Amino acid sequence: MSYDVRTRLSDLRRAFHRHPEPGWREFRTTARVVEELERIGVDEIAVGREALATDERMAVPSDADLEPWLERARDAGVRSDILERTDSGHTGVVATFEQGSGPCIGLRVDLDAISMRESDESDHRPAAEGFRSEHDGYMHACGHDAHVAIALGTLEAVKTGAFEGTLKVFFQPAEEISGGGKAMAESGHLDDVDYLLALHIGLDHPTGEIVAGIEKPLAMAHLTATFEGASAHAGKAPNEGANAMQAAATAIQNAYGIPRHSDGMTRVNVGHIEGGTASNVIAEEVTIEAEVRGETTALMEYTRTELERVCYAAAEMHDCDVTPRVISESPRADSHPALRDLVAGIAREVDGVERVVPSTEFGVSEDVTYLMDHVQDDGGLASYVLVGTDHPTNHHTPTFDIDETSLEIGVSVLAETAVELSQRPV
Amino acid sequence: MSYDVRTRLSDLRRAFHRHPEPGWREFRTTARVVEELERIGVDEIAVGREALATDERMAVPSDADLEPWLERARDAGVRSDILERTDSGHTGVVATFEQGSGPCIGLRVDLDAISMRESDESDHRPAAEGFRSEHDGYMHACGHDAHVAIALGTLEAVKTGAFEGTLKVFFQPAEEISGGGKAMAESGHLDDVDYLLALHIGLDHPTGEIVAGIEKPLAMAHLTATFEGASAHAGKAPNEGANAMQAAATAIQNAYGIPRHSDGMTRVNVGHIEGGTASNVIAEEVTIEAEVRGETTALMEYTRTELERVCYAAAEMHDCDVTPRVISESPRADSHPALRDLVAGIAREVDGVERVVPSTEFGVSEDVTYLMDHVQDDGGLASYVLVGTDHPTNHHTPTFDIDETSLEIGVSVLAETAVELSQRPV
Amino acid sequence: MSYDVRTRLSDLRRAFHRHPEPGWREFRTTARVVEELERIGVDEIAVGREALATDERMAVPSDADLEPWLERARDAGVRSDILERTDSGHTGVVATFEQGSGPCIGLRVDLDAISMRESDESDHRPAAEGFRSEHDGYMHACGHDAHVAIALGTLEAVKTGAFEGTLKVFFQPAEEISGGGKAMAESGHLDDVDYLLALHIGLDHPTGEIVAGIEKPLAMAHLTATFEGASAHAGKAPNEGANAMQAAATAIQNAYGIPRHSDGMTRVNVGHIEGGTASNVIAEEVTIEAEVRGETTALMEYTRTELERVCYAAAEMHDCDVTPRVISESPRADSHPALRDLVAGIAREVDGVERVVPSTEFGVSEDVTYLMDHVQDDGGLASYVLVGTDHPTNHHTPTFDIDETSLEIGVSVLAETAVELSQRPV
Amino acid sequence: MSYDVRTRLSDLRRAFHRHPEPGWREFRTTARVVEELERIGVDEIAVGREALATDERMAVPSDADLEPWLERARDAGVRSDILERTDSGHTGVVATFEQGSGPCIGLRVDLDAISMRESDESDHRPAAEGFRSEHDGYMHACGHDAHVAIALGTLEAVKTGAFEGTLKVFFQPAEEISGGGKAMAESGHLDDVDYLLALHIGLDHPTGEIVAGIEKPLAMAHLTATFEGASAHAGKAPNEGANAMQAAATAIQNAYGIPRHSDGMTRVNVGHIEGGTASNVIAEEVTIEAEVRGETTALMEYTRTELERVCYAAAEMHDCDVTPRVISESPRADSHPALRDLVAGIAREVDGVERVVPSTEFGVSEDVTYLMDHVQDDGGLASYVLVGTDHPTNHHTPTFDIDETSLEIGVSVLAETAVELSQRPV
Repeated sequence: MSYDVRTRLSDLRRAFHRHPEPGWREFRTTARVVEELERIGVDEIAVGREALATDERMAVPSDADLEPWLERARDAGVRSDILERTDSGHTGVVATFEQGSGPCIGLRVDLDAISMRESDESDHRPAAEGFRSEHDGYMHACGHDAHVAIALGTLEAVKTGAFEGTLKVFFQPAEEISGGGKAMAESGHLDDVDYLLALHIGLDHPTGEIVAGIEKPLAMAHLTATFEGASAHAGKAPNEGANAMQAAATAIQNAYGIPRHSDGMTRVNVGHIEGGTASNVIAEEVTIEAEVRGETTALMEYTRTELERVCYAAAEMHDCDVTPRVISESPRADSHPALRDLVAGIAREVDGVERVVPSTEFGVSEDVTYLMDHVQDDGGLASYVLVGTDHPTNHHTPTFDIDETSLEIGVSVLAETAVELSQRPV
Repeated sequence: MSYDVRTRLSDLRRAFHRHPEPGWREFRTTARVVEELERIGVDEIAVGREALATDERMAVPSDADLEPWLERARDAGVRSDILERTDSGHTGVVATFEQGSGPCIGLRVDLDAISMRESDESDHRPAAEGFRSEHDGYMHACGHDAHVAIALGTLEAVKTGAFEGTLKVFFQPAEEISGGGKAMAESGHLDDVDYLLALHIGLDHPTGEIVAGIEKPLAMAHLTATFEGASAHAGKAPNEGANAMQAAATAIQNAYGIPRHSDGMTRVNVGHIEGGTASNVIAEEVTIEAEVRGETTALMEYTRTELERVCYAAAEMHDCDVTPRVISESPRADSHPALRDLVAGIAREVDGVERVVPSTEFGVSEDVTYLMDHVQDDGGLASYVLVGTDHPTNHHTPTFDIDETSLEIGVSVLAETAVELSQRPV
Repeated sequence: MSYDVRTRLSDLRRAFHRHPEPGWREFRTTARVVEELERIGVDEIAVGREALATDERMAVPSDADLEPWLERARDAGVRSDILERTDSGHTGVVATFEQGSGPCIGLRVDLDAISMRESDESDHRPAAEGFRSEHDGYMHACGHDAHVAIALGTLEAVKTGAFEGTLKVFFQPAEEISGGGKAMAESGHLDDVDYLLALHIGLDHPTGEIVAGIEKPLAMAHLTATFEGASAHAGKAPNEGANAMQAAATAIQNAYGIPRHSDGMTRVNVGHIEGGTASNVIAEEVTIEAEVRGETTALMEYTRTELERVCYAAAEMHDCDVTPRVISESPRADSHPALRDLVAGIAREVDGVERVVPSTEFGVSEDVTYLMDHVQDDGGLASYVLVGTDHPTNHHTPTFDIDETSLEIGVSVLAETAVELSQRPV
Repeated sequence: MSYDVRTRLSDLRRAFHRHPEPGWREFRTTARVVEELERIGVDEIAVGREALATDERMAVPSDADLEPWLERARDAGVRSDILERTDSGHTGVVATFEQGSGPCIGLRVDLDAISMRESDESDHRPAAEGFRSEHDGYMHACGHDAHVAIALGTLEAVKTGAFEGTLKVFFQPAEEISGGGKAMAESGHLDDVDYLLALHIGLDHPTGEIVAGIEKPLAMAHLTATFEGASAHAGKAPNEGANAMQAAATAIQNAYGIPRHSDGMTRVNVGHIEGGTASNVIAEEVTIEAEVRGETTALMEYTRTELERVCYAAAEMHDCDVTPRVISESPRADSHPALRDLVAGIAREVDGVERVVPSTEFGVSEDVTYLMDHVQDDGGLASYVLVGTDHPTNHHTPTFDIDETSLEIGVSVLAETAVELSQRPV
């Protein structure tokens, strides 16, 4: 790969890194992707509403939470035609490039950052080299900046190569909050995709290592439940209240007691709680945020149903009301062995790749599974490819960073796989 | 009082003491009461079914639990005509004595013993003097043996005195399990009673002390609840069970959390639990026994309703069934000030009485309240009279005993009160 | 009472009403009290630090919470010499007036307002007549504005009357958060007080009614407990966390299960909770705010000790740490019958008083009990006097208001009681 | 196999079936095994104490529980020399047969039955053909009767075959209660065993199917915990008690909430509870029986440690004492692939075998793992062989039965494996 390409990939990644935006608020990121696509030249650019099934979006923030990010994008001079298409929580892009008459290959990457203050220590390269987050309190700490750069690089590489077919790149919003996967999967853009490649970097695999297909992203649901009772003076008339605090405590204790399942691994957690007003008032309202996971979609759904039952009964026990709401959800999906094998075969020939691992278990959740499921349910194949990169600290830490030499490795693996698939479909 | 009377009272009390029988199984006790009444000579002796509203009995044991006691009574030569009238849990007697045309005065005592092994130490008088319980594992440890002796003595004293009216003595079964009070209250025998005197000895008041009227017996309900789920192999398939153990634990934790009430004192307790079969099986069935109390009947009912709600919700939470059942229940009732005053005035003149206390709070529950309520709801007056007696250790302990000199004091106070009421109704 | 006095009382009360300040932030209120005292003329004015035992203050807000109120007071032109003496949470005043050589009489009122947005409806008199709160979100909704006006009026009335002795008026800060009572009680100013009169208006008693002495303010403690565990990824490694959420839920469930006590009424409540960061993270930290109360100080302390035990064990169970902290606390104290009787006798002769109630039960908590205890422990007498006032809605509601004609009644009762005590000590 | 052998196997199995004995009470069973061994002729018969490490026995019943079974055996004419060696819970046999100088091969079977009333329906073959359990309430419902018959048949077959080496047969007591495995593993008899074959029949595999090596018996521990508090009258003085019921309920709720573990499957269950005396008494003592399991020994131990912590903290929370005790425990062990392969190869050649499965997961626990661990830790190999048999209903049900044609298949597979190993060690 040429020095220019390397530099471009690095520059791109750093540009995205400097302007991290959380889920459904990737206004500036979306616009930059569009501009790059226009520069590269593709056949169709579906932006925002055009790229999503609006009603399938999950975990969309309130207008009040969206507004400051829209404002910030406007202030940064983001093109108004793009902001119009992405407003009200409609970020994301699907780019389509056609060259000849082969199969349709999809590539999915994600756009959003997380809420975390990036390190400003001098041994943190983004700080040292001037591309640290300019949005204080937010950070690309999971590598999505690299994903986007690799996707753009792949598109460019495919365009200049022996590719014959259609390449669609899905720049998905709101992955971290499991909010965008379903909306993009159901957008219609995925319906003609024969092969889907999804991408993740790092995950404790070093530069030079490729995992051809990640297995077992856990199915997951994120729920919230507000117990609503009645307040009363805790000294004068505790019996006149309906104690949302007791209801919540009962729910929490019993949530963790949901039976382990013989079919495989399940998880349940209540990770946030807030409620009540003062020590001398019977709490009228307490809200919990919880998640359930399962090794399969069915196991996740079992646990979710049990959790909902626990909440309803805990509320009833204390004369309260509750309506557990699913904020976001993602199924399980697996990489297809045949596609995995093809990726592995190609990766072994790529410069810089020292080791190819056929598959690993993911252990956590990812809403790319909506896209993988959609393609595989229609008879297509999907694989979730991991591109190793040296990272000094764990994902989701303030000093997370990547080894940028892995960017071109990622581009090569993905572009060559796309070319191969277009010529010799499996 | 003559030496003879003293001896008779003591002999009678010791006879009852030697043959303690638990609630609804007072076959021999009932028979002995009948025989004494026949000896004394009264106008009517209603026995067993004749003395009770059958359907209002509570906490009646199963036939299997009744049978050994019936058998024991038969073996001891108890008259079969009496056993016939008391079978299937119908113990108890109402004796009526008429002399002239005055008001109707009721006197209520209780017959049953408790499940406790009586001490056989040499410093325990019943053991030393040969009248220790002959029914191993059962004991008159609350003084009901003395109550019955005093009631019989009172009847005899009234008969030979200046009494003008009707005296009805209620020998109530199953007080300890709150089982017999309602059935006797609703038997019809109480309908014409103008004044009801109830009797208890001891309760930490020494010989020579009389409490003219006990206040505030707590309202009480005794409940049982069986959580029924589904068993499953705890290793292979815990998710296939419906865990009655978790349901019961949730119910217990939340039962104790029923809100304190602004209107007054409440109590809740889960005092017994049993369930499950083995450590490796999800428990299919767990049974709890609980009680609730309240300073008023309404407070008891509030707590009972909350406890039932807790049970239902705990069952639902773990996919189990439950039907809480009230085993026995008693309301609150108070001694009437006018009758209390009259008792106090008379007691002050009785030989051996050194101190008269107008009233004390009871602090526990007693199903005499059904009888007191019945009489007072009809416009009559009731008082629950306490006759002090030195007792070496607490009621309901293996070394409980009484000072028999208090027997004649009790007879004098009650008989003279009855005579006074028959002549000068309040 | 002259038209002028009436108007002054009303004006004063309205001035305080317009500028409500919460506990330990009564900078402007304190300054206004000082200015009024200077106008009236007294012998000593102890302000802020001079009026308090610094180390005995409870529930003092952080500097960050104090600062905006100090700023607001500065902006309103409050005298800097007063602000200096009250800074860092040292509000409050003790005023001493001597006239002749009689006994020392104390009068205690409170300065603080609560956090509540006052109604702006036209049928709410403060809104209609232009003296609604100018500090949005804060309100004198418990009548402390009236208390202060009455205290100043009483001082003025005593000064012009036949008073012989010393009158000390305690303007206590931070009553609503039980924060200032102990600090004022331990300030030394109370050491020579022979009779303490405390004041409250309303509490469902109409204008024209006086309660000579309130009984049984409940003993109370307000606690906070932060459960500190270890976070972990709830999907990948729940076992690596120490779950503060489970610890808190266990503590809450068991807090409500602290046994009812045979000696009298107790209360326990967890009224606020907050903790955890996200649904997919094992919660590292959860904080609860709780209170316990008791009919006696011992009962409160029993409940507090049990609550602390529950917290420690719940933390240990889930490998977390916790240190329950008492934020504020107040004992129980009762009005002395002799002083109550004297107040009652005087009140019956006061114009506008239609009914005098010897005593009522308070039912809630008040940190005036620290002052009452201090005086009575030294052999003095105390009474907590209630001055009835028609109030359209309950205390602590957005439409609470008083009938200002009760202000002069309050002044008369207190001033005449002070005069009487100075001449004929009881 | 000859008609005689078939009949003998069937007769033997039926004889054992008729006299089921629970763990550590297999007096008659042990004696019959000894008699059969004497008939067959072996070199050494270690009985009872001689076959066990006394101190390593777990879950041994009390003498009171042993006595009736000893009595029953005596009444049935069991030889007193054998009873002497097996008394006080020392059942079991190790038989040693030597022929030539090859390796030492162990075969382990189990002796005990379970507590279950066998069906007397006419479609239950043991009932129809007269060999139903004669010990009412106990039943060979897991096939141990067949295991013993197969072991004796194998010994006989080996003796008459081309075997060169030592065959040791371990007739282990108390498998169902995980009580005997460790004591036999540590008896010394296993120290020179090179290859250990363990046997189970059925487990949903039909006649004609052989599983060469069972994998992953779960590690397991069975615990009991008695919460000891203080009783008190629940109405009069609940605060004077230390409530073991609340402690137990808290422990149960939190036991089920022990975190799932990232390293693999865990289980926890509280399967039995009993405690308290009456509804009106604060419970002084409540006992729970629990088990924990893990996919590995470490996972089981993690869960056990957490459960113990939960118990201690729950006790402390309610001022109770507790000492969780491990009743029995078994580690995880796996079949060795090399031995599994050898068994598979031989099984394929055995008459009646239609299908050979290399391995299956066990899913539950078995204390044979102590023996397997012991052999493999010393460098030997072990395999847990499953011999399929049609069984009309599940193991541990009242109508469990086996297809007796599987007995001779079992004998052939095991005897031929032993012969092969003696000649061509792997």
